[in-house]
Amino acid sequence: MKQAVILLSGGLDSSTVLALAQSQGFSISALTVFYGQRNHVELSAAKKIVKHFNIANHKIIELDLGLIGGSSLTDKIRVKSHQEQDDNIIPDTYVPARNTIMLSLALAYAEVQGAYDIFFGANIHDYSGYPDCRPAYIKAFQNMANLATKSSVEGHSIGIHAPLVNKSKAEIIKLGLSLGIDYSMTHSCYDPKGNRACGQCSACFYRQKGFADAQVADPTVYNEV
Amino acid sequence: MKQAVILLSGGLDSSTVLALAQSQGFSISALTVFYGQRNHVELSAAKKIVKHFNIANHKIIELDLGLIGGSSLTDKIRVKSHQEQDDNIIPDTYVPARNTIMLSLALAYAEVQGAYDIFFGANIHDYSGYPDCRPAYIKAFQNMANLATKSSVEGHSIGIHAPLVNKSKAEIIKLGLSLGIDYSMTHSCYDPKGNRACGQCSACFYRQKGFADAQVADPTVYNEV
Repeated sequence: MKQAVILLSGGLDSSTVLALAQSQGFSISALTVFYGQRNHVELSAAKKIVKHFNIANHKIIELDLGLIGGSSLTDKIRVKSHQEQDDNIIPDTYVPARNTIMLSLALAYAEVQGAYDIFFGANIHDYSGYPDCRPAYIKAFQNMANLATKSSVEGHSIGIHAPLVNKSKAEIIKLGLSLGIDYSMTHSCYDPKGNRACGQCSACFYRQKGFADAQVADPTVYNEV
Repeated sequence: MKQAVILLSGGLDSSTVLALAQSQGFSISALTVFYGQRNHVELSAAKKIVKHFNIANHKIIELDLGLIGGSSLTDKIRVKSHQEQDDNIIPDTYVPARNTIMLSLALAYAEVQGAYDIFFGANIHDYSGYPDCRPAYIKAFQNMANLATKSSVEGHSIGIHAPLVNKSKAEIIKLGLSLGIDYSMTHSCYDPKGNRACGQCSACFYRQKGFADAQVADPTVYNEV
């Protein structure tokens, strides 16, 4: 059976990617990187998804990117509401080199698992401006990965897959529902209040818009303001 | 003043790279990744080098790559002596995707520090077979890095520098001595016994050979067998 590593945050996109890769016949090893982000509710969401899809291998790695800083997700600075966000600049929820760090860890885990395919939930439509979600970046990471590891020296070809990269949030939700995802298990909010999504940040905005555009009821529990 | 991030393990090579970059006029931020390796004596070596060269910024990040495994440096398996090592296969001291993970963390740290140059001590001559020390790999990482971060979107060019990549260990030692390194501060051994180098592993072998070839007294304290 083909092996794949999935970067699983517990969010809407990465949960959909996991379901998609499983439906394509891959045996899945999930990797969750807990990087000191504010939205650590994601961790329990990731565990629910892993259980729901009967994933035998789930590796959780702790790496405190707050030590490096430079993001409102890891630092003690306020997360802006979506309305305060300027669409023309990279949002301060950007975490320096986050996808590069996570994909690097996935590359290591894939090598140990004998997997040559890595899937992650990068998406360019809804979240504008994250440089490490662009197709050119993903291709460059794949090129590098094919020179980086023992697997590549042994002649295996490493694939870095971002199957949602060009899909709208509504398309992702419809895809996930067709694959049996219960989105109440997933978590998107950048700044949750306990277990409740804030309903104000950009992640909540795009999630709400996605369910509305897909004409599907949003199962998320939002904080009442 | 130009800023640079140096990946500093506390070994002979990375310490030389730090001294070299400082001599070239860079203001240095050092990054040490403690990845659960057996040779954690390296950490105190890194601290000595940082003090010796008056480096104001030294970030230490813990990331337990033993959770991923696949290496005799992080797993509880015996480190082979140099004589047991087959030159035609990648040694089991290879850590899956190690340089990729470390360079990714350096990329994040560089972005926060406003640095566009990253130096590390990769070398192809003495340690044969590590895929992530090859010039083609380093170039591919640089290409990826130039698409990965906010800095690159803002028009800055990221340089990944491995100035020792083609030097022999003897050349590195002569260079370091000319730059004021006290190599008794540095540590290379994969499998130290307390603070003493084992004198048997490949890292010890190449270090000893380097000092011999350079016709310089080796200040390392080796374990007596």
